[in-house]
Amino acid sequence: VSQNSLQEAFSAQSLADLLQADCLLTELVGCSDTLCESIMPLAKAQPGSLSFAVSEKQAPLLEITKASVLILPSSLKAFIKPSVRACLYVTAPYLAYAKVSSLFDKCPAQDAGIHSSAIIHETANLGVNVYIGPNVVIEAQAKVSDNTYIGANSFIGARTQVGEGCRIHPNVTLYHDVQIGDRVIIHSSAVIGSDGFGFAPSQDGWVKIHQIGGVTLGDDVEVGAGTTIDRGALEDTFIGAGVKLDNQVQIAHNVHLGEHCAVAACVGIAGSTKLGKGCTVAGGVGIAGHLDITEDVHFTGNTTVTRSVRKPGSYSSGTVIEPSGQWRKNAARFRSLDELFRRVKMLEKKLS
Amino acid sequence: VSQNSLQEAFSAQSLADLLQADCLLTELVGCSDTLCESIMPLAKAQPGSLSFAVSEKQAPLLEITKASVLILPSSLKAFIKPSVRACLYVTAPYLAYAKVSSLFDKCPAQDAGIHSSAIIHETANLGVNVYIGPNVVIEAQAKVSDNTYIGANSFIGARTQVGEGCRIHPNVTLYHDVQIGDRVIIHSSAVIGSDGFGFAPSQDGWVKIHQIGGVTLGDDVEVGAGTTIDRGALEDTFIGAGVKLDNQVQIAHNVHLGEHCAVAACVGIAGSTKLGKGCTVAGGVGIAGHLDITEDVHFTGNTTVTRSVRKPGSYSSGTVIEPSGQWRKNAARFRSLDELFRRVKMLEKKLS
Amino acid sequence: VSQNSLQEAFSAQSLADLLQADCLLTELVGCSDTLCESIMPLAKAQPGSLSFAVSEKQAPLLEITKASVLILPSSLKAFIKPSVRACLYVTAPYLAYAKVSSLFDKCPAQDAGIHSSAIIHETANLGVNVYIGPNVVIEAQAKVSDNTYIGANSFIGARTQVGEGCRIHPNVTLYHDVQIGDRVIIHSSAVIGSDGFGFAPSQDGWVKIHQIGGVTLGDDVEVGAGTTIDRGALEDTFIGAGVKLDNQVQIAHNVHLGEHCAVAACVGIAGSTKLGKGCTVAGGVGIAGHLDITEDVHFTGNTTVTRSVRKPGSYSSGTVIEPSGQWRKNAARFRSLDELFRRVKMLEKKLS
Repeated sequence: VSQNSLQEAFSAQSLADLLQADCLLTELVGCSDTLCESIMPLAKAQPGSLSFAVSEKQAPLLEITKASVLILPSSLKAFIKPSVRACLYVTAPYLAYAKVSSLFDKCPAQDAGIHSSAIIHETANLGVNVYIGPNVVIEAQAKVSDNTYIGANSFIGARTQVGEGCRIHPNVTLYHDVQIGDRVIIHSSAVIGSDGFGFAPSQDGWVKIHQIGGVTLGDDVEVGAGTTIDRGALEDTFIGAGVKLDNQVQIAHNVHLGEHCAVAACVGIAGSTKLGKGCTVAGGVGIAGHLDITEDVHFTGNTTVTRSVRKPGSYSSGTVIEPSGQWRKNAARFRSLDELFRRVKMLEKKLS
Repeated sequence: VSQNSLQEAFSAQSLADLLQADCLLTELVGCSDTLCESIMPLAKAQPGSLSFAVSEKQAPLLEITKASVLILPSSLKAFIKPSVRACLYVTAPYLAYAKVSSLFDKCPAQDAGIHSSAIIHETANLGVNVYIGPNVVIEAQAKVSDNTYIGANSFIGARTQVGEGCRIHPNVTLYHDVQIGDRVIIHSSAVIGSDGFGFAPSQDGWVKIHQIGGVTLGDDVEVGAGTTIDRGALEDTFIGAGVKLDNQVQIAHNVHLGEHCAVAACVGIAGSTKLGKGCTVAGGVGIAGHLDITEDVHFTGNTTVTRSVRKPGSYSSGTVIEPSGQWRKNAARFRSLDELFRRVKMLEKKLS
Repeated sequence: VSQNSLQEAFSAQSLADLLQADCLLTELVGCSDTLCESIMPLAKAQPGSLSFAVSEKQAPLLEITKASVLILPSSLKAFIKPSVRACLYVTAPYLAYAKVSSLFDKCPAQDAGIHSSAIIHETANLGVNVYIGPNVVIEAQAKVSDNTYIGANSFIGARTQVGEGCRIHPNVTLYHDVQIGDRVIIHSSAVIGSDGFGFAPSQDGWVKIHQIGGVTLGDDVEVGAGTTIDRGALEDTFIGAGVKLDNQVQIAHNVHLGEHCAVAACVGIAGSTKLGKGCTVAGGVGIAGHLDITEDVHFTGNTTVTRSVRKPGSYSSGTVIEPSGQWRKNAARFRSLDELFRRVKMLEKKLS
């Protein structure tokens, strides 16, 4: 187990090679064998650090940074001071930073292997080069594909399939009959496949509607810590390829998220609602059930969405902070707002 | 372990018998030995599927459905086409669907037994026909009653009692001194009995008020994934019989939920608040502490509740979505709303 | 394992000694050997109970209480009835209650020891008198300091350090490279050190920005059930000493919480936002990213915070509940609020 490997250092040349492969690099200027041991923000970087700038607003920080190597757009060339030993000029600096960040990730890479304490049903199907952590439980006919990591104390239910190259962190629960694509990341305490919230009223109280569908997650999905995705009532709840869900997101039964949606923390999406491709949902948004949200819609933080949206664009609701004493007066007045409109209409009539 | 049982098929007659027992069936028309292998929505059903309709709005779907067996109200009799081989006419079709849905649930039924890796205190008390999954930990003097299922990696604290016929899914935490009724379902990552949030201010910062009460859950409660229910400060937090809590609900210390309340996802109920019987709380609602909400109150999605409610009915707060540019102007104006009312009053005075 | 110890009883004198040590006691009046077996609210207390009153509003309850021992301010002396056998007069009764509450806590005290099922990397470092519960997993070079309790099925990642006298409840996940101070309490299903939500857009979708920072929690922090704290993008996410986080709080990457902040349940704080010392955040509040909130700010329940706050005080947003029919009219009008202001301005012009 290579949990304790020392941080490596990377030469400016090796970073350049990586960015060249992604067609991001335009030029490497300076000493190509300069080593970077860390990435830091411009203001905090030390000799031996890599840092990055994305726009001319950061020019003042380039004056003071102690970073040895920089990733930046060529428009910032004029601001480089001599202590910087190598500059990687790129077409998309933020994306270039994302690409090189993977080199510095300290998340332990585990050697493949199945821990002796894992409890794996005899009919489960494990690919090659998998890591199955301590106390993992894998039930009947489940499948874990090649190069996938299942963290300690996680549970994989019957017939659930996890694709290739996934990382399921510790203490995750995947219920039965869940389909997980390739390269999916699921963070701790997430739950996928719990029962949708469906009950029929009766004289004796709520009668459970058993949730017979499953959940399908496409390739390259990331699911945050504590996020919950319910199984469908009859068909699968569906999360498209490339969707990113932050922490404590709640996805109800039968929801359909189009490809590449990004959903920030504490968002709840109620049953059977569909979001088109590329929607971005800020933190704390609540979306009612049975709505149809088209592609490329953005909701700002804490917005309440109670109607379908047919037109791409940014949408909001709510009010903004003010001192509580003043707010109490305004909030009290809100309850007479309709009446106020009618009073103003009356005044307008009188005056015309 | 019968995790891998094949899906069974059910005859129209066997469904009729089930619904008859619940006094829901009025008539079975057609071929009573027609088999159903699945339930599907009308539009997606295939030959061999059971489907259901609840109102005349669905008449157009009855024209196109390929389902072999239908559950529906007799008012829809005229719309049945010949490919439907059997119709179950019922008085309450949605409830009838809920009743038969249990037959098609693929959630693995586990044979009773205690997994060898479970760690059970010698003073714990296990009923007959219980399933205790891998790595379950049960502490001193805890009790698990007959026919109850405790999923893998769950924790049952000291002196906690779980009733009969419960299903505690994997990775659930029940702290010490928690009382769980019969036929309770608790989904993964839920936590019951964590400390209420109580601190006394002091010169040295917040001093913890130890939470000495427990939690009581009545019979037939369901608790969603990631839901948290805190123990009481001095007495028990109380969840009445038949209450249904969706995912990521937060119930603070000393809350009292009357029987048959239904609380959708992402709701938070602050300390010592009481809800009467049969309240329904939509997703994302926040209810302040020390409030008294009477019976049969409904709060719509994302409502903020800061005062007690004495009268049954539906309540709301907030504003509705609009394009963000337009919203910014309106939200800015809200901060002068009280002033606007005074300006209008002044105009009215001048004009009268 | 002392999970099943019987509840002890405490004499009025022993409580007085405890409060004297904290300089809270002014006087013990009555029979100092009266025993208390429980703490209860005034109205529910029985003979043998300790109870407490904090203000003169509670004088009527002093008339009816059956408590044997009371903690109260000397201003309430006149209301004591003869059945009360001992009174502890204190300068700060709520704080005194907090102090004595620890005596009555039934949370099992575990004897130190490492359960045979725990899986501890050979390079991990365990202090003296630690309790490591069943199925705990501790990875390479992690450290658990003296007198700390790690609950069943919890996971401690590589190089993570847990201070002295902590209580990590069952089913907690601490990722790698997390620093936990002394006397920290973390409740079940909490996750600390999950990846911050950072992605760069590209033609092929979102590209993950690896999260290289860690998380630092100061001394005396408490973290509620299901709360998630993400690791920093480059530097550590920081939670100051004495901070109390309730259940289902979400702290994004690079957030900085000053000392002694108290954050109630269901709050989300987005990336890189800073709160000064002593802020109190009520339930359900959402705070946008990259904001700077000064010291001693209070946000009321469910407030949406989208701008920095430079001045201490209480802030709010939103509207208050009203019957849904009436609310729908007002909410519809809100969308024309800016227009209404302009109409009123026009009227004022005409009339002047």
